[in-house]
Amino acid sequence: MPQLRLLPRRAWAALFSQLLRPPCTSSPGAVHCHSQVAEAVLTSQLKPHQDKPNFVIKTPKGTRDLSPQQMVVREKILDLVVSCFKRHGAKGLDTPAFELKEVLTEKYGEDSGLIYDLKDQGGELLSLRYDLTVPFARYLAMNKVKKMKRYHVGKVWRRESPTVLQGRYREFCQCDFDIAGQFDPMIPDAECLKIMCEILSGLQLGDFLIKVNDRRIMDGMFAVCGVPESKFRAVGSSIDKLDKMSWKDVRHEMVAKKGLAPEVADQIGDYIQCHGGVTLVEQMFQDPRLSQNKQALEGLEDLKLLFEYLTLFGISEKISFDLSLARGLDYYTGVIYEAILLQSPAQAGEEPLSMGSVAAGGRYDGLVGMFDPKGHNVPCVGLSIGVERIFSIVEQRMKTLGERIRTSETQVFVATPQKNFLQERLKLIAELWDAGIKAEMLYKNNPKLLTQLHYCENMGIPLAVIIGEQELKEGVIKLRSVASREEVAIKRENLVAEIQKRLSES
Amino acid sequence: MPQLRLLPRRAWAALFSQLLRPPCTSSPGAVHCHSQVAEAVLTSQLKPHQDKPNFVIKTPKGTRDLSPQQMVVREKILDLVVSCFKRHGAKGLDTPAFELKEVLTEKYGEDSGLIYDLKDQGGELLSLRYDLTVPFARYLAMNKVKKMKRYHVGKVWRRESPTVLQGRYREFCQCDFDIAGQFDPMIPDAECLKIMCEILSGLQLGDFLIKVNDRRIMDGMFAVCGVPESKFRAVGSSIDKLDKMSWKDVRHEMVAKKGLAPEVADQIGDYIQCHGGVTLVEQMFQDPRLSQNKQALEGLEDLKLLFEYLTLFGISEKISFDLSLARGLDYYTGVIYEAILLQSPAQAGEEPLSMGSVAAGGRYDGLVGMFDPKGHNVPCVGLSIGVERIFSIVEQRMKTLGERIRTSETQVFVATPQKNFLQERLKLIAELWDAGIKAEMLYKNNPKLLTQLHYCENMGIPLAVIIGEQELKEGVIKLRSVASREEVAIKRENLVAEIQKRLSES
Repeated sequence: MPQLRLLPRRAWAALFSQLLRPPCTSSPGAVHCHSQVAEAVLTSQLKPHQDKPNFVIKTPKGTRDLSPQQMVVREKILDLVVSCFKRHGAKGLDTPAFELKEVLTEKYGEDSGLIYDLKDQGGELLSLRYDLTVPFARYLAMNKVKKMKRYHVGKVWRRESPTVLQGRYREFCQCDFDIAGQFDPMIPDAECLKIMCEILSGLQLGDFLIKVNDRRIMDGMFAVCGVPESKFRAVGSSIDKLDKMSWKDVRHEMVAKKGLAPEVADQIGDYIQCHGGVTLVEQMFQDPRLSQNKQALEGLEDLKLLFEYLTLFGISEKISFDLSLARGLDYYTGVIYEAILLQSPAQAGEEPLSMGSVAAGGRYDGLVGMFDPKGHNVPCVGLSIGVERIFSIVEQRMKTLGERIRTSETQVFVATPQKNFLQERLKLIAELWDAGIKAEMLYKNNPKLLTQLHYCENMGIPLAVIIGEQELKEGVIKLRSVASREEVAIKRENLVAEIQKRLSES
Repeated sequence: MPQLRLLPRRAWAALFSQLLRPPCTSSPGAVHCHSQVAEAVLTSQLKPHQDKPNFVIKTPKGTRDLSPQQMVVREKILDLVVSCFKRHGAKGLDTPAFELKEVLTEKYGEDSGLIYDLKDQGGELLSLRYDLTVPFARYLAMNKVKKMKRYHVGKVWRRESPTVLQGRYREFCQCDFDIAGQFDPMIPDAECLKIMCEILSGLQLGDFLIKVNDRRIMDGMFAVCGVPESKFRAVGSSIDKLDKMSWKDVRHEMVAKKGLAPEVADQIGDYIQCHGGVTLVEQMFQDPRLSQNKQALEGLEDLKLLFEYLTLFGISEKISFDLSLARGLDYYTGVIYEAILLQSPAQAGEEPLSMGSVAAGGRYDGLVGMFDPKGHNVPCVGLSIGVERIFSIVEQRMKTLGERIRTSETQVFVATPQKNFLQERLKLIAELWDAGIKAEMLYKNNPKLLTQLHYCENMGIPLAVIIGEQELKEGVIKLRSVASREEVAIKRENLVAEIQKRLSES
């Protein structure tokens, strides 16, 4: 897929060149960087007093603050994701952080227990949203929207239990793209997979693979193996755990907890070992049992068509038909997919990371109808980018490479070598701000010149303007390149133009 | 303040020219715009069925979805706000949507009852954040950060009661900029006011005024009027209601509910009528009673210095020292400020809007210490932009002017006049996406040409590329300007370059 990478790779390279600058030592007087953020804990101690906290100061379990360094990385990654969504014509949408409790009820299967409820303070019963998909479906039904291509970037909340919390958060960001509407089969579905490929290629996370399956094929498989229909979703939930548990343990859960006969579980075990390209689709058409199941056949027909479109998009070699892919959520009705990174076990200098899926989605044709008073449906297909995992990978990589990030975008620093020059600095910096130039100065009446220049070097500010008695008398300002330490006197009236010229060249 | 407006006004004009396009009629087949969003309600009726909702489908009370149209306006406004924060050297920061309940306790005075609590589902007691300031102070204390200039854009939640809900939301966005650290007096404070001026000028909301006061002057005023110290905050809360209630009602509240002697209330009434520029500061230095109060004198000294810096910034005529400004929140300790729009009562074609304050802030030197186990303080000053009110004004203005907004950024539409050309369209659109071009097509096997061209006109897409048998045979693509309807045949291999040229020119 070489042509795919052209633009995003350039964009990504540009990101890194923006982000990175040579490490340098810190100086006093600087607004300090600080990285000791997540889950740092200060216990209350000594001199208890009414104004002091008598509890542990921390963020809630499973949540974290994002430091300026993390925010820079996050912003760049989200920009790349959102610009891809916009490239595909998506509109923005936002929904409240909480919904009526009933909106979320019976949408998430076994995971429903992880929903955060709000306290009943009189009035409506509310819950924090668990994903962005159910609120989107609620929005479509509530506004009788029949067609829409939208993206949504926002936080969602899940009360993950401590045992699964490792590497997961209870508050995390989702980036969703969905296409709602009645269209000819598999065209929007193929576009969703194209988008996942564009984003994962663009982010340069290494090689990846997208597993594809279809809920109808899975249900057909359950049916021909002898699973009672009432147990389809429960058994699907067990299979969904195959990325965290061995087949042996999953099989045990299906038999002991979900009440499947051992021979039924074993038949399922045979099927879910199958994965491959479009040839596996053809092969399954020939499967003597599966080919007798109407639902499964429909799913296989769609997958065949999907692979045809993926080939035209030039991404079919990134896609694997995988009968073990289940996806936990209740609301999927057709094609489902999940992207995983194919990390070589020991990439140069990097800690091995178990990342799980970094993007996923599928078709949910019945969800909108659950909110419509007459049950009218709007077919939908969509995807969600697992940006938290992507953030972790990029952060880890930058840490390993010892890369430092600029956390502010300041272009010019206003300095003086003399005492009692605060007024002149204030006038000068206001001129720069009013011209749209990103500028800072120290909030001191009489800072030392060395402190001011150290601040520039420390913060990676490229230019400094220096004003003193001599300059004031001559009507000039000294313009200093922080890296080369070269200084040149510029007439005050030409200063803004000269700075803008230098910034546009760099 | 003419020079202030130069850049922002240009930027804003550019925004509007991007946003607007001539209204046109809608066509079938288009992904429809839809505006009937907020608070639309579908009642469940007819054929109750397990899959149909047996409750009213709506967003929670006091919250709303943001439609694509609203999101475009919001995105542009937030871009302007955030770019101003970055121009002043701020770093980004994010904190969780909820905090430990104790973190929010005793920070908001009488408003504490409006905090949303989460249900106790086992584990920690949590509350949704009420503003972005307390989480920032918690972050500073938790990470022992002594200096930081940060911005934060995020949602906050307040259980406003139905009577005050009019025009307010229970979920709303805040844009905060704060400077933490021990610096020479009034330099960061002046910068905060400069930022408010830059943003309000840049947004072109009409003339505005920033009221300034100081908690120490207010407390000094209370003291010399004979208010017992234990009632300072409660009486301040009453005065804070002067934008919603008459002085008569506020006076009644102070006397009847807060237990002030009537003559004390009247003395306060005399003071809070005073407002003016730096000359009022001078005048208050001469006030025989206020000048005897140490706290008030400190506040007046600082205000005098502040006005000196504001004059250097060229914004002093936008600032009014106003003794009636109280600000409801408990945590302010020094300078406080609030920006209001000065709307002429009947601006051409616009509905009169009662907007209240559109930005506010102040100094809070004691808040970080409340989270530090040893009570170590970090002085802070900051501001918050009331973007929800600004959104409403801009929306209202656009509605009045009958302006339509493009909700997607699609540059090129891929069309065909012939049947059975889906495969060619898919290949062509993938080429465009891979070249970074924003492109769409209809998700139909055989759409009519007219439907496709209508879609372009409807959605404001500037270019269409058309592929049919003739073009395929000749190795060309027809490139159509949607507005002029001019078509020209371009060699397939030159298509991307030609499109990029046209887009860069437009």
